[in-house]
Amino acid sequence: MKTVLILGAGLSSNMLIWYYLQRAGQMDLHVRVGDISHATAAAKISGFENCSAFEFDVYNEMQRNHEISGADIVISMLPARMHPLMARTCINHSKNMVTASYASSEMLLLDREAREKGVLIMNECGVDPGIDHMSAMQMINRIRGKGLELVAFESSTGGLVAPGFENNPWQYKFTWNPRNVILAGRDGARFLHNGKFKYIPYHKLFSRIETINVPKLGKFEVYGNRDSLMYRNTYGLHNLETMFRGTIRRPGFCEAWDTFVQLGATDDSYIMEDTENMTCREFINSFMAYRIDIPVEEKLSNYLGIPMGSEMMERLKWLGIFSDEKIGIPGLTPAQVLQKILTEKWSLEPGDKDMILMQHQFDYMEEGKRKKIYSTLTYIGNDNYNTAMAATVGLPVAIISRMILEGRIKPKGVHLPVIKECYEPVLEELKQYNMNFVEETIDVPPDSESV
Amino acid sequence: MKTVLILGAGLSSNMLIWYYLQRAGQMDLHVRVGDISHATAAAKISGFENCSAFEFDVYNEMQRNHEISGADIVISMLPARMHPLMARTCINHSKNMVTASYASSEMLLLDREAREKGVLIMNECGVDPGIDHMSAMQMINRIRGKGLELVAFESSTGGLVAPGFENNPWQYKFTWNPRNVILAGRDGARFLHNGKFKYIPYHKLFSRIETINVPKLGKFEVYGNRDSLMYRNTYGLHNLETMFRGTIRRPGFCEAWDTFVQLGATDDSYIMEDTENMTCREFINSFMAYRIDIPVEEKLSNYLGIPMGSEMMERLKWLGIFSDEKIGIPGLTPAQVLQKILTEKWSLEPGDKDMILMQHQFDYMEEGKRKKIYSTLTYIGNDNYNTAMAATVGLPVAIISRMILEGRIKPKGVHLPVIKECYEPVLEELKQYNMNFVEETIDVPPDSESV
Repeated sequence: MKTVLILGAGLSSNMLIWYYLQRAGQMDLHVRVGDISHATAAAKISGFENCSAFEFDVYNEMQRNHEISGADIVISMLPARMHPLMARTCINHSKNMVTASYASSEMLLLDREAREKGVLIMNECGVDPGIDHMSAMQMINRIRGKGLELVAFESSTGGLVAPGFENNPWQYKFTWNPRNVILAGRDGARFLHNGKFKYIPYHKLFSRIETINVPKLGKFEVYGNRDSLMYRNTYGLHNLETMFRGTIRRPGFCEAWDTFVQLGATDDSYIMEDTENMTCREFINSFMAYRIDIPVEEKLSNYLGIPMGSEMMERLKWLGIFSDEKIGIPGLTPAQVLQKILTEKWSLEPGDKDMILMQHQFDYMEEGKRKKIYSTLTYIGNDNYNTAMAATVGLPVAIISRMILEGRIKPKGVHLPVIKECYEPVLEELKQYNMNFVEETIDVPPDSESV
Repeated sequence: MKTVLILGAGLSSNMLIWYYLQRAGQMDLHVRVGDISHATAAAKISGFENCSAFEFDVYNEMQRNHEISGADIVISMLPARMHPLMARTCINHSKNMVTASYASSEMLLLDREAREKGVLIMNECGVDPGIDHMSAMQMINRIRGKGLELVAFESSTGGLVAPGFENNPWQYKFTWNPRNVILAGRDGARFLHNGKFKYIPYHKLFSRIETINVPKLGKFEVYGNRDSLMYRNTYGLHNLETMFRGTIRRPGFCEAWDTFVQLGATDDSYIMEDTENMTCREFINSFMAYRIDIPVEEKLSNYLGIPMGSEMMERLKWLGIFSDEKIGIPGLTPAQVLQKILTEKWSLEPGDKDMILMQHQFDYMEEGKRKKIYSTLTYIGNDNYNTAMAATVGLPVAIISRMILEGRIKPKGVHLPVIKECYEPVLEELKQYNMNFVEETIDVPPDSESV
């Protein structure tokens, strides 16, 4: 019997845990699920056999070593910042590990040590990053396999509410860790556009947006997602004119979200004064100059150029940010206060469905003409528990970790799933879960504007 | 014979080293000056006796321990980030240490350990922070000594070119570490204004400015300087309506500097692509959207709303940021590229004089009426070597370290110079160097607008 150790049993682990519980008997597995909350872990395995739940504290060194040393594969769905520590422990015990998180520079530095110990640390195995890498790499190799030259690659993904469930003025709800949504974009964006390197700082990110058109779904906004340039190496693309990764939102979201960025309300670097007794209204006011002769709404309107009565001002009002309700919790950062306010408005309700939308654009030259392949994945969740986010993050993590457990992925070291022996079977198996890309090829007109 | 160890022999150490070299014979001292560049250290002691110069690498553990263990007082003028390491080593060897840098949270955590070892680590002993704390504390205690209630405290300092030497369109030159100037303000500002806590993020800092009037010198701009709120504890002020610390610049500077902040050109968190072959013009262009149909100047004008032909655009052009000159150095961050460009234009030339300008405003209630004391220090440097910056930073560091060496400051632990037994004699001795505050008291009109 082999042991699958899954650490972190939050929302995005639902499908991952389910995948293994379904197969535990047949595969002769014991599925061990740990979480900082024992109740959370226990709820996920309730009613199943061949499994156990336990309270897990990653900073408890003895427990961390004990659990990892007893596992045959380690799957970490813990917060990304904990992964270098996890990886070091896995390397010490010669255990392979899988995560859905971005491989940090600290993680990448462990590559040599992992190779020497014959350990595989596979990162970025979720949806974005994850399915995006795998599906892009498959198409890139298909284009190159035909001897054609790829000239541009753009890839965007969004975790959104499904069509029909955009029933609030923002057309947005949290389908993912709210904290990650609030801190999204903090490092700005770096990419390549028509041969020019472009750098967008955080405070300009949400006003420097691009628009994409998705068949049957219409227009969406895209803002730049971190450092696109480093993925030239990952994908082996060195002569591109354009290389851009983005995050998708519904129209109007970015402009409204930018209000919080401009105010400084997404800052997570300092503790505000007396957040226990501060009201929502005072929170917003604290980011603007002292003036007592006009209301906070009008002050905000003047400060950031948001017309009173505009759709955008209505979006802001709907959130309750101008209310006299107290935050009620001491010692919060601005980002934590904002999260408290937004969670009350943006949580998925029973019956709500979410959606993962991913669109790649591959431009290549064929017989002197420029062509573009749109490759689009639309995946709708079942409900507010079995979400599209949980499925698209959890299933590739599950499939990849299973392949490693079964010895089907040979390389050692710190990797991303852009290896053919990895992405081909994963994408194939994901089709069983209706995760299919729709392709369309068009001739590119001579010039078109974007970011 | 006692040994005074001075580490870091850059511009701001000139007067500090000179102070000790003058007195070395009489005080029976050996002055030992270390710098990462032996030549820099040697130049500072050339022609003097009772001294030695050496190459010093703070990260050479053996050397660090050796030098510190042999010293009777350690004065560190090294970059601030090195000070916790320096302090830990000083504590291990039971040596007292003085710095001109802000006491970081990492430094403050060493307080207990320092007390236990009977060691004094005195930080913020330069001009800002330093003379500002000492002069403010003296006045605050004077007001409190009369039984009067302080209601507001604002304090601003600037390192500027002296009147008559503002001979460029920015009326600004580097009189201090250029890197610190470029990164200034990165953490935004937090302060208290008329009873309201205010938080300004970095990207709004240079547009949310205040104006001050200085007798004989006219108007200046002030932008918020870091976290003013923490100094309520330092100064023992708990019922203030207003508590603000700021940085002074000449009119027009902040608006123009904000161009670089808005572009993202002061970012120090990532390495740009191919800075060796990048031109100044390409540097600026890389922060703006792809468009080849209009020149970079016009693109900038549209992007940030800077009218073509305006004084501000002329300031930017004068810097050479639109030139086709190559940066010529690989692997730079945006902040490092900007520093390279600015250093060519903003360096003090022979004959140039600089100025330190500091203005405190203390509001207090006396017989039901609100009064304000302006307390202003204007200090002009001798030349581009014996600068006002070097004098106002170096002399208080010298005087405080001498007092510690002579056993005249008793407390142990991590401190700032807000202790009466420290600031009174220091301010008294500084008068010998013409560092005098000019005071004026006015009746405050019922209301006046500011930040």
